[in-house]
Amino acid sequence: MPEFLELLPPAEALRRFLEHLAPHLAEEEVPTEEAVGRVTYRPIVAPHPLPSFPRATVDGFAVRAADTFGASEALPAYLECVGEIAMGEAPAFELRAAQCASIHTGGMLPGGADAVVMLEHTQSVRPNEIEVLRAVAPGENVLKIGEDVQEGEEVIPAGARLRPAEIGGLMALGITCLGVVRKPRVGILSTGDEIIPPSAAISPGRVRDVNSYSLGALVEACGGLAVRYGILPDQAEPLRAAAQRALAENEMVVITAGSSASTRDLTVEVIRTLGEPGVLVHGINIRPGKPTILAVCAGKPVVGLPGNPLSALVIAYLFVVPAIEALLGLARQPFRASVPAHLTLNLASQAGREDWVAVRLMASPQGYLAEPVFGKSNLIFTLVRADGLVRIPPAAVGLEAGAQVEVLLL
Amino acid sequence: MPEFLELLPPAEALRRFLEHLAPHLAEEEVPTEEAVGRVTYRPIVAPHPLPSFPRATVDGFAVRAADTFGASEALPAYLECVGEIAMGEAPAFELRAAQCASIHTGGMLPGGADAVVMLEHTQSVRPNEIEVLRAVAPGENVLKIGEDVQEGEEVIPAGARLRPAEIGGLMALGITCLGVVRKPRVGILSTGDEIIPPSAAISPGRVRDVNSYSLGALVEACGGLAVRYGILPDQAEPLRAAAQRALAENEMVVITAGSSASTRDLTVEVIRTLGEPGVLVHGINIRPGKPTILAVCAGKPVVGLPGNPLSALVIAYLFVVPAIEALLGLARQPFRASVPAHLTLNLASQAGREDWVAVRLMASPQGYLAEPVFGKSNLIFTLVRADGLVRIPPAAVGLEAGAQVEVLLL
Repeated sequence: MPEFLELLPPAEALRRFLEHLAPHLAEEEVPTEEAVGRVTYRPIVAPHPLPSFPRATVDGFAVRAADTFGASEALPAYLECVGEIAMGEAPAFELRAAQCASIHTGGMLPGGADAVVMLEHTQSVRPNEIEVLRAVAPGENVLKIGEDVQEGEEVIPAGARLRPAEIGGLMALGITCLGVVRKPRVGILSTGDEIIPPSAAISPGRVRDVNSYSLGALVEACGGLAVRYGILPDQAEPLRAAAQRALAENEMVVITAGSSASTRDLTVEVIRTLGEPGVLVHGINIRPGKPTILAVCAGKPVVGLPGNPLSALVIAYLFVVPAIEALLGLARQPFRASVPAHLTLNLASQAGREDWVAVRLMASPQGYLAEPVFGKSNLIFTLVRADGLVRIPPAAVGLEAGAQVEVLLL
Repeated sequence: MPEFLELLPPAEALRRFLEHLAPHLAEEEVPTEEAVGRVTYRPIVAPHPLPSFPRATVDGFAVRAADTFGASEALPAYLECVGEIAMGEAPAFELRAAQCASIHTGGMLPGGADAVVMLEHTQSVRPNEIEVLRAVAPGENVLKIGEDVQEGEEVIPAGARLRPAEIGGLMALGITCLGVVRKPRVGILSTGDEIIPPSAAISPGRVRDVNSYSLGALVEACGGLAVRYGILPDQAEPLRAAAQRALAENEMVVITAGSSASTRDLTVEVIRTLGEPGVLVHGINIRPGKPTILAVCAGKPVVGLPGNPLSALVIAYLFVVPAIEALLGLARQPFRASVPAHLTLNLASQAGREDWVAVRLMASPQGYLAEPVFGKSNLIFTLVRADGLVRIPPAAVGLEAGAQVEVLLL
C-alpha cells in the first residue's frame, strides 16, 4: 500500500491549507516604541493633520508671493524684514504687503506669508531690508498643513507589520501606544522514542531534540510565540493527549514526527482525532518534506512535519510561516526577499516535483555565486552550512550551472 | 562659502568610515534558545561527532553488506532475522554472518552490521527469515559516525549571526548556552528647538520627535541596543555635553541634526570636539542624505544624520546598520536580500549622484511592479507608504519605466 494516496503540488497544498485559516486573534495594547514587527489590529487614523502648521522647507525668508512677482537679479523686489522666526515658536506677527521674515527650514510661516524665498536668492541691502532676486509662486518652499497626512486619513491599515518607518510615523501623530494583534501561540511537540532533551548527555541510540528549538526560533522570528510541549514517545495515547492539550492552549500546533513510516502514520492518526475538518493534505510533491501533513482541527492549523531536521525546517519556512502570517491577518502578502545569484553546478531534479536545494553564497566580480551544499537530508548541519534555498520548479528537470536563481535566505 | 567642501561617493564614504571600526565588544553568555539573531563571540567546536552512532537512513533491515552480494529478485539472499532494534536503544546483540535485524529510520545499527536494506527490497518468507531482493554496498542507507560533524570540527565560526538552523545545530551538540557578542549600545540624540516628545500635545511651530524612535527601532532590528538621550536644543554647549556623555556610555552615537544649515553646522562642530580621528566624511553625493556626517571619536562611530525623517532613516539603513554590523564583528558581509521588480515610471537623477527612491511594490502577472512614492523628503509618511528603496547608481542619469530593479525592503 502506498504511504500517500496523492502527492499534491506545493502551491495547491498551501492554498488548501490557508483557505481554512482566518485571523481571529485578540487585540493587545503595546507601547509604540516596542511595537516594531507587530501587526496592527485596526486601521490607524491621523488625529490631526501633518504638518499641523505651514512649514518652510528651506532656509530663507517667508514672504507674500505676490510681492516677489517679476523679481529678478536685474530688477529685485525690495522687502522690509520684520523679524526672525525662531524654531519651535509661532510667529507673534503677521506679514503685511512688502514685508518678509527670516525663517529656517522647518520653521512656521507667519500669518500673511504664503511662500519662502531661498536664502541664496536674496541679498541683504541694509538692516531690515532685503533684495529678492527671483520670484516665488504661492506655496513654493512651503509644506502646507496636511500635505503629509490629512486629519482623519487612514495612515496605516489594519493587518500591517510595523517597521521602523511606521514607528516614527506613529510618534509624529502622538500615538505612543496602539492595539496590535496578539502573538499567535504555537505549540511544538517533538515525537520519537530516540529523542532526548538538549541538556541530556549523549548515549548510544539517542539523539538530542533539534526541531523544538529550530522551529521555535523560526516561529518567534516571524511573529509567533513558541510554546514547547517537550518530547513525546512513539505511542498514540500520550501523543494524542499532549496534542489535544496543545491545541486547546494554542492557536496552532506543530508536531515533528519520528522519521520512520510507522511513526509518521502515528502522527497522522493522532491528528485525525483532533477535530474537523482534519487532515487536508498528506503528502506533498516536494523535496525535502514529502511526508508533510497539513490539517485544520477545531479551526486551528495543525502541521505534521517530517522528523529530520533539514526537512522540518525547510517545510516550516514554506508552510508554517505562511500559516502564522495568516493567523496574524496580514493585509498584504508579505514579500519574500531573495539574493540573485548564479548556480555553480548542474542540479538534477525529478519532473513534477518541486525541489529546494540548500546553497552557500559566494561573492564574485560577476555577482553572487550559489554553490549547492550537498548532504543527506537527515544531516543536521546542512542548513547551518547554507545561506539559503534555491527552488527548482516542478516543471523543470533541473537547473544548469550558470543559471540565474533567486536565493531565499534562511 | 559652500557648506560642503567635497561630496564623497557613498561607497567611498562607507569605506572610509568602516575602516576605522573594529569589533571590540565583550562576550556575554546566553541560553541557546534565546540566541537567535545574536552573533557568536568565538568559534563553536563540536564536543562529539554527529551522529554519535551509526544510524539507519531508511526503514528496513540492518545487514552485513557482504551477505547480500549478488542478491536479486531471481536469486534472493536469505537472512535470519534476530530481532528488532527499538528506537532510542543500543542493540544488545551483534550480527553474525547471514543474520539481519529489523531497523527503523534513525535507529542504531548493531555491531557487525554495515548497511541497511530497504523494506521494499525484502520479502518476509517465514517467521525470523527474510529474502533480500537487491544487494547493498557497505555503508548504504547508513549515516556513519561523524558523517554530519566530526568531533573537534568548527561547526560555526566566530562572528556568525545565529539563525534557526544554528539554534537547532547547537542543541544537537548539547550546547544549551553559548558566548555571544554583547549588543552594541547606540546612543541616540535628537536636536532641534522645535522638537517635542511624542507624548506632548501639538502646538503651532512644534513637531514631535520621530527620529529617536524610527532609528531606535532600526538599531534594535539589526542587533543593537538603542539608548535614547532625548531632545537637545540647538545650542552648542548642552548638545556637546549630552553627546560627550552618550559617547562615554555607548559604543556608538547617532545625532539627528535640526534641518537648517545652521543647526547642521552646530552638529558637525560638536562632533569635532568629541575626539580623534573625528569627522571622516561631511557631505555625501547621495539623495536623500547629502549633509550626512560620519565620524569616529575616541574609537567609536558617531553619525550625524539629517533631521528630516525620511533622509535620516534612509541614511541609517545605508550607514548606521553597516556600522553596527562592523561593531558586532560579523565574519561575512551580510547579504542584502531584495525583491526583483520592474519600474512603472521613468526616474530622473543627476549623473554622479546616487539616488534612493522609495517605491511601493505591486504584484502583477509578470512579477512585481515598483511604483515610485513621490513626496518631498521632509514628509514623514513617504516611507510608511513605501515597501522599499530602489538605487539609481551614480553613473546613471535615471532609470526608464520597465527597467528591472532590485527593491531593498525597508
